[in-house]
Amino acid sequence: MKIKTGDDYRQSLKALGTEVYVLGEKVDDVTTNPFTRPHVNCAALLYDLTGDPGLGDLLTAKSHLTGKKISRFTHIHQSTDDLVAKVKMMRAMGRKTGSCFQRCVGHDGLNTLYSVTYEIDGELGTEYHQRLRNYLEHVQEENIMIAGAMTDAKGDRSLRPSKQTDPDMFVRVTGRRADGVIVRGCKMHITGAVNSHDVLVMPTTGMGEEEKDFAVSFSIPANTSGVVMVFGRQTNDARRAENGTLDLGNAAYGPVGGEAAIFFEDVFVPWERVFLCGEHRFSGSFVDRFATAHRQNYGGCKAGICDVMIGAAALVAEYQGTDGASHVRDKVTEMIHLAETLHSCSLACSYEGAPTPSGAYVADRLLANVVKMNTTRFVYEVARLVHDVAGGFIATTPSERDMNHPKLGKFIDKYFKSKNGFPAEHRIRIGRLIECMTGGTTLTESMHGAGSPQAQRLMILRRGNIEEKKRFARELAGIPEPGES
Amino acid sequence: MKIKTGDDYRQSLKALGTEVYVLGEKVDDVTTNPFTRPHVNCAALLYDLTGDPGLGDLLTAKSHLTGKKISRFTHIHQSTDDLVAKVKMMRAMGRKTGSCFQRCVGHDGLNTLYSVTYEIDGELGTEYHQRLRNYLEHVQEENIMIAGAMTDAKGDRSLRPSKQTDPDMFVRVTGRRADGVIVRGCKMHITGAVNSHDVLVMPTTGMGEEEKDFAVSFSIPANTSGVVMVFGRQTNDARRAENGTLDLGNAAYGPVGGEAAIFFEDVFVPWERVFLCGEHRFSGSFVDRFATAHRQNYGGCKAGICDVMIGAAALVAEYQGTDGASHVRDKVTEMIHLAETLHSCSLACSYEGAPTPSGAYVADRLLANVVKMNTTRFVYEVARLVHDVAGGFIATTPSERDMNHPKLGKFIDKYFKSKNGFPAEHRIRIGRLIECMTGGTTLTESMHGAGSPQAQRLMILRRGNIEEKKRFARELAGIPEPGES
Amino acid sequence: MKIKTGDDYRQSLKALGTEVYVLGEKVDDVTTNPFTRPHVNCAALLYDLTGDPGLGDLLTAKSHLTGKKISRFTHIHQSTDDLVAKVKMMRAMGRKTGSCFQRCVGHDGLNTLYSVTYEIDGELGTEYHQRLRNYLEHVQEENIMIAGAMTDAKGDRSLRPSKQTDPDMFVRVTGRRADGVIVRGCKMHITGAVNSHDVLVMPTTGMGEEEKDFAVSFSIPANTSGVVMVFGRQTNDARRAENGTLDLGNAAYGPVGGEAAIFFEDVFVPWERVFLCGEHRFSGSFVDRFATAHRQNYGGCKAGICDVMIGAAALVAEYQGTDGASHVRDKVTEMIHLAETLHSCSLACSYEGAPTPSGAYVADRLLANVVKMNTTRFVYEVARLVHDVAGGFIATTPSERDMNHPKLGKFIDKYFKSKNGFPAEHRIRIGRLIECMTGGTTLTESMHGAGSPQAQRLMILRRGNIEEKKRFARELAGIPEPGES
Amino acid sequence: MKIKTGDDYRQSLKALGTEVYVLGEKVDDVTTNPFTRPHVNCAALLYDLTGDPGLGDLLTAKSHLTGKKISRFTHIHQSTDDLVAKVKMMRAMGRKTGSCFQRCVGHDGLNTLYSVTYEIDGELGTEYHQRLRNYLEHVQEENIMIAGAMTDAKGDRSLRPSKQTDPDMFVRVTGRRADGVIVRGCKMHITGAVNSHDVLVMPTTGMGEEEKDFAVSFSIPANTSGVVMVFGRQTNDARRAENGTLDLGNAAYGPVGGEAAIFFEDVFVPWERVFLCGEHRFSGSFVDRFATAHRQNYGGCKAGICDVMIGAAALVAEYQGTDGASHVRDKVTEMIHLAETLHSCSLACSYEGAPTPSGAYVADRLLANVVKMNTTRFVYEVARLVHDVAGGFIATTPSERDMNHPKLGKFIDKYFKSKNGFPAEHRIRIGRLIECMTGGTTLTESMHGAGSPQAQRLMILRRGNIEEKKRFARELAGIPEPGES
Repeated sequence: MKIKTGDDYRQSLKALGTEVYVLGEKVDDVTTNPFTRPHVNCAALLYDLTGDPGLGDLLTAKSHLTGKKISRFTHIHQSTDDLVAKVKMMRAMGRKTGSCFQRCVGHDGLNTLYSVTYEIDGELGTEYHQRLRNYLEHVQEENIMIAGAMTDAKGDRSLRPSKQTDPDMFVRVTGRRADGVIVRGCKMHITGAVNSHDVLVMPTTGMGEEEKDFAVSFSIPANTSGVVMVFGRQTNDARRAENGTLDLGNAAYGPVGGEAAIFFEDVFVPWERVFLCGEHRFSGSFVDRFATAHRQNYGGCKAGICDVMIGAAALVAEYQGTDGASHVRDKVTEMIHLAETLHSCSLACSYEGAPTPSGAYVADRLLANVVKMNTTRFVYEVARLVHDVAGGFIATTPSERDMNHPKLGKFIDKYFKSKNGFPAEHRIRIGRLIECMTGGTTLTESMHGAGSPQAQRLMILRRGNIEEKKRFARELAGIPEPGES
Repeated sequence: MKIKTGDDYRQSLKALGTEVYVLGEKVDDVTTNPFTRPHVNCAALLYDLTGDPGLGDLLTAKSHLTGKKISRFTHIHQSTDDLVAKVKMMRAMGRKTGSCFQRCVGHDGLNTLYSVTYEIDGELGTEYHQRLRNYLEHVQEENIMIAGAMTDAKGDRSLRPSKQTDPDMFVRVTGRRADGVIVRGCKMHITGAVNSHDVLVMPTTGMGEEEKDFAVSFSIPANTSGVVMVFGRQTNDARRAENGTLDLGNAAYGPVGGEAAIFFEDVFVPWERVFLCGEHRFSGSFVDRFATAHRQNYGGCKAGICDVMIGAAALVAEYQGTDGASHVRDKVTEMIHLAETLHSCSLACSYEGAPTPSGAYVADRLLANVVKMNTTRFVYEVARLVHDVAGGFIATTPSERDMNHPKLGKFIDKYFKSKNGFPAEHRIRIGRLIECMTGGTTLTESMHGAGSPQAQRLMILRRGNIEEKKRFARELAGIPEPGES
Repeated sequence: MKIKTGDDYRQSLKALGTEVYVLGEKVDDVTTNPFTRPHVNCAALLYDLTGDPGLGDLLTAKSHLTGKKISRFTHIHQSTDDLVAKVKMMRAMGRKTGSCFQRCVGHDGLNTLYSVTYEIDGELGTEYHQRLRNYLEHVQEENIMIAGAMTDAKGDRSLRPSKQTDPDMFVRVTGRRADGVIVRGCKMHITGAVNSHDVLVMPTTGMGEEEKDFAVSFSIPANTSGVVMVFGRQTNDARRAENGTLDLGNAAYGPVGGEAAIFFEDVFVPWERVFLCGEHRFSGSFVDRFATAHRQNYGGCKAGICDVMIGAAALVAEYQGTDGASHVRDKVTEMIHLAETLHSCSLACSYEGAPTPSGAYVADRLLANVVKMNTTRFVYEVARLVHDVAGGFIATTPSERDMNHPKLGKFIDKYFKSKNGFPAEHRIRIGRLIECMTGGTTLTESMHGAGSPQAQRLMILRRGNIEEKKRFARELAGIPEPGES
Repeated sequence: MKIKTGDDYRQSLKALGTEVYVLGEKVDDVTTNPFTRPHVNCAALLYDLTGDPGLGDLLTAKSHLTGKKISRFTHIHQSTDDLVAKVKMMRAMGRKTGSCFQRCVGHDGLNTLYSVTYEIDGELGTEYHQRLRNYLEHVQEENIMIAGAMTDAKGDRSLRPSKQTDPDMFVRVTGRRADGVIVRGCKMHITGAVNSHDVLVMPTTGMGEEEKDFAVSFSIPANTSGVVMVFGRQTNDARRAENGTLDLGNAAYGPVGGEAAIFFEDVFVPWERVFLCGEHRFSGSFVDRFATAHRQNYGGCKAGICDVMIGAAALVAEYQGTDGASHVRDKVTEMIHLAETLHSCSLACSYEGAPTPSGAYVADRLLANVVKMNTTRFVYEVARLVHDVAGGFIATTPSERDMNHPKLGKFIDKYFKSKNGFPAEHRIRIGRLIECMTGGTTLTESMHGAGSPQAQRLMILRRGNIEEKKRFARELAGIPEPGES
């Protein structure tokens, strides 16, 4: 692992110089720009904690390629234990950051490519899998952070890629050369993009015969010519320009992972980094495999984030003297129940994982979708409950500058204090943390990250084995099987 | 009505010059300060629409004191029709503003004082009610906007007012003079405070014998010496400092009513504006009466706000080509169902209202609490559903400045467009509106405005007539009444 | 009102002698048969209570035809007050019976026919409305109980009436004579059918040109030749054959209204009782009008039934010594909240009712669907909560015969007693009442009575005025109306 | 395994002759009595399937005592794989029976005693564990079915065992002899009691010093003198006396496990079957250990039962021609989602299990409570959804006797048929199965089996590690730990 520490990581980003825009201006240095900095910090913490003894083996693994110790975020799962370790690592990091640490997308992308390229090669005699292994060795050796990029612009959702008025609504190959391909399009909502070293592109949906040019997967350095990123707005992002920290709630790591739109303006990709190019029949496998891997995560990190919200609820109740109230205890209980249900689903889909032909393990496909479906409800409910417990002050408290104002500061200290022994500032800090963690961006991420709920529902129905269930019912009701009498 | 138009109103605020702070700085003019301006706009719209023929009699009423046409926000309800008209007016205005228009708190405060002072005088021979009528005539004549101020700082919630370490945790009388009283303390979360003409203070809980000094109600001009207001932070408030408008979502009126903490630093109140002073037994009546009046509202304005969110969901689906999808139609149906359930509860508690001894009408007490209790759930669920329908772009879209950037603007136009005929900008505008209307501040207001949910639950249990219900059960089960055989 | 008392009613049923089957046997006398008796009792109670001073004017009204005092169940609503009175009457009776009193279906049918026949005649010059008025006068004079019959057998739900393999899947005219028509088919799930005097048939869906024969409405005596009824099974119905009463829970009135399938085997209907015959365009109006009237009710009777369940929960907690537990109090609060939300929706749709061209009032169409939609959720949740509060004994308690057994009776008295002063029998009686009121039949009635939830959702979406809501959103987001710039 | 087949089992029960009462009459033979027969059938099926190759090793295990192949229901868990196998076995059997197969309670009791007696002996030098091992060897060898009996009569729930007016409200030792003890009291809601060979008694709550006599655990043959059982009523139990089968829905196995109250009338228990006698400090361990083991199960069997309900919903939709409707597909999806969430929680708590000092494995305590808590909600919701999909006919369909009636049978065949190719009888059979599986008894079992929901909530809060969660929140909010600065 060449990039070992957070500082190594920051230096590497400075050197990379990806073309990133925030609020209409080009960013000089994503590690210091106030809008991107918290997300850099969050990923940097992962680097710093990789060798942390308190986390045991959660953040590292042994490479099946080289036998070396590597970051788990570059590891191909070799067992259900690896799948479980991923989920537990994510909960642990969710608790430490209260945010999104961004490396899981690339990790899930690598695992997706590993098994799918194996299957393509097996069927078509291509050499994608060997290319991927070479690339993977490089990634593990360097300890590179990869932004997984799947979601396209999509245009009119009622039309297929090939039927869009503007053919660029899905990333596509616009030219082929001896040494590589030219691609154009846009990938949306890409977590960690502005502070990743590489961008790994995958198709966003199954493709048909007439959509060969959209069946493309590749990975390139983020600073490749023609790659332009514009950073998305988040809830309360503009407070980062105020130079304070208290009003940010989670000043160190931000409310959730920073996401960017990545524009590919006729970008060249050398063949050794191309992992799918025209084999349209396999596009669906990318989506299915990646969705499984990524949906598996949500009972990891989000359970950890819920843990922080539960702690915040318990603390604010303590500060306000309501921690003994039965209704507060009941709401805290409910929050724990929901967090543990989320986590249980992630654990179950991991333990029930199975190997692919490549040897890489994937989580149970049905249960991984169940994980994510629950996330789209439970995180909202946990946010609602923490609002309930905290009280209205989380939406009306004066600013850090008011607290520092000579006349106002005294008033705030006096009147925002509650129970003896707990200063107003502590109560306000927890209020701001709650505000940060329950903002619209964070909630939306729980809703649409790893695919919208309807995508999960389709998979749940498809994998729910209805015909078998009908047989159980017929058997008990005394109805013969169709065709019998 | 001396203050007739929005401009009249703005001029009156400029003249008033209340001591208001935002982000640690004293505000010169609340009508132009970017943080307070949207809230002024929202209240100003009410003034402008008062005579609007399209709204019929919703915004006006006939004074029972003078027979003159007055703003409904200064009217004492003379019938259940008045109660219903209030609720329908609020839904209409919620639809026009997508925000909180702030005048209902003072309105409900006036109605509370009208009936409670009548009852105090009837029992104790005081003259509060006549004072209130004099004040009311002035309010109606001037068409004054009043900030109703009930919630105290409260300190340690497990202790009563008289047991707090710092006695100022509840507003109290610190001195009595021939011409009036001196008061100290703080009122929290006061909606519309910074752009109201008067502040009407009421006790926040029932008081005991040893809490006479906390049993105080009065109304004073907002610019009274010693009254200091600090404006609370809201979700995405800092974007108002950016000079753009698009990223605000609801640039005209803001996400919700602006709320302030009001500090009373030994403020003098003349007797003619004092409506309770020491008669502690009646403190609970203020709370009960005001809570009923204010909780009644939430199926008015919030139903209107839900209507806007439903429209936004339907629009964004249309733009994206998903408006025909059955799951989208089902979610929109659910949103309508929830909004109409909210509104039905407000209508029911209004139609079932009854007169107080003073002649003023109040909503049904049990049902008004039911209204508010539903609000603490349904508005969150509507927000969740609009997130679901809209998609992840509401949390990752670039800024207005990016849209205006020569290079990025083209990309955004191209890739954020979806269905033919709908430009990217329209889709983004709806996305920002959704972001604005589902932010934490807005949701928190639905949770804690007019009292926290546990306050409603206590009232629902208390007014649920359990003993009568037990009799129904015993009768049907064939169990004799206690004492019979 | 010729039939004044419950006894009058019972005598009239004995004289009627409808052809009714229960468990494969023809019933001699529905007033004494143990399976039908409770439902007769429940309807008989309505007759007995009609003049009850404690219920004021709820159960009676003044006929707009004759000016005489009549049963409200035969009244055509002349005002929103009448609509509200219906709902309040139903809650009052739900509390007294804990069951379904069955007369509302016919009542809603009469009101439906009154307004729709007026509109048909107005457009086509037919004379249905005058016929209906003649019939109505007879009904009011006799105080006849009418079974409203709408739901057809339906066959394959994916096919229209005219496309069914068997044309009898919807009631239809099979012959026309000078003096009347011949009809065939089946009406399903008809509440109160076996103990009603007349059966009022209406079409169950909108009909097209090719479905003229299905567009038929009429009312005939239940004992008309060719009318055969078979009584449906209900939860725990077989216990009625055991000769005990305690295990029935609600021995007097049963768990819910008794429902029957009515087979029409080429039945003759004289013209004076035919109210639609071929005017297919108006079929939809029957459904729409009847659905509105009937869905309006569910926050009446079901709120009353919930009141009994709340009382039962409170009683069983008292008997068991858990009535002071905070979680029990919270669950009882939630039950009250749900019951009052249901009732509020019924009140709102009634108060917001409006006159039809005929002068008859109908409830608000959107809100009436909201009422019913909530019923399909809240009654289930109330049942769940009463199970929670009551404890497992409601599902495992020995029988009345065990209680009467010399050896077992002592054990049961000893071990099923809980708190001092409350005998085991009382606790068991409440347990049985809860069992009775939360059985599958009762719940299913809340789900599918007055139409399945999907029917309500379609209406809610259709009447939700989406285009207006889109305008609100566009206005606030700064998007021009389509066609403007 | 001496008892190998269902017939062996039935013969053994005939020979046993436990004193059982149903409906006030002594039962001659539980294997033929119509009320108890289905439950016998269900347990018999387990015996018959023990060697079924299709079920692999789910139903058997290798004894850690003897190395022999034994029924898993007599096995002490030696690994997390065993814990997982238990849960998967239960889902498989839930699918095959649609009911409760009753052997898990005794199984969980054996595992509880195994680990707790080990710990008592370790601390106090008693010899309970060796006794238990001897007993266990006998149980495994014979393949005995054991009824686990924990819940006491409890009397006034607000009082502890020693404070009850009648000391028999909790099973207690009333005499001690050289060869054993005398016990008196009652165990309630005991699943499978009337068709088990042995009854294993455990204390139902933690006991104090003054409650030594209540701290008692033992196992005795069900036919021991002084043991009297009275069988509890279930939803629709009386239909079993009708001689038909169709109306029972699940005629073979019944709606849920049969439960009985067991009265102990000064029963003698020899010392070799006593596993706790006075060591009150360990009473709580029985409860805690047993609750964990038993709550773990509910995402096994109930998920299997949900699978049957899902199949029934899909079938009835197919029969009625609605299986393609989007709302039906969505409801079926939701049912699958809920079933899999339940199952995931059971899997997670099993995989995360850990060994006790005795070597026996127990599931994760926090997550086992989460399993059960979800069951108290999700099974009700699945029942609600299957009602929704099925339609009202499940509550109004005529009886089997009506179907066999010459005149009515034709009508029913004709009018209850829906889609071509599916006879009315099949549709009715599925309707009856749904009625059976969603009756009150079944739902109550999901609510209160393995302890009431409040018991789970207490455990969830206790094991939720709130202090650790507070630290996460403080760390992110920048608040020093208490005691630091």
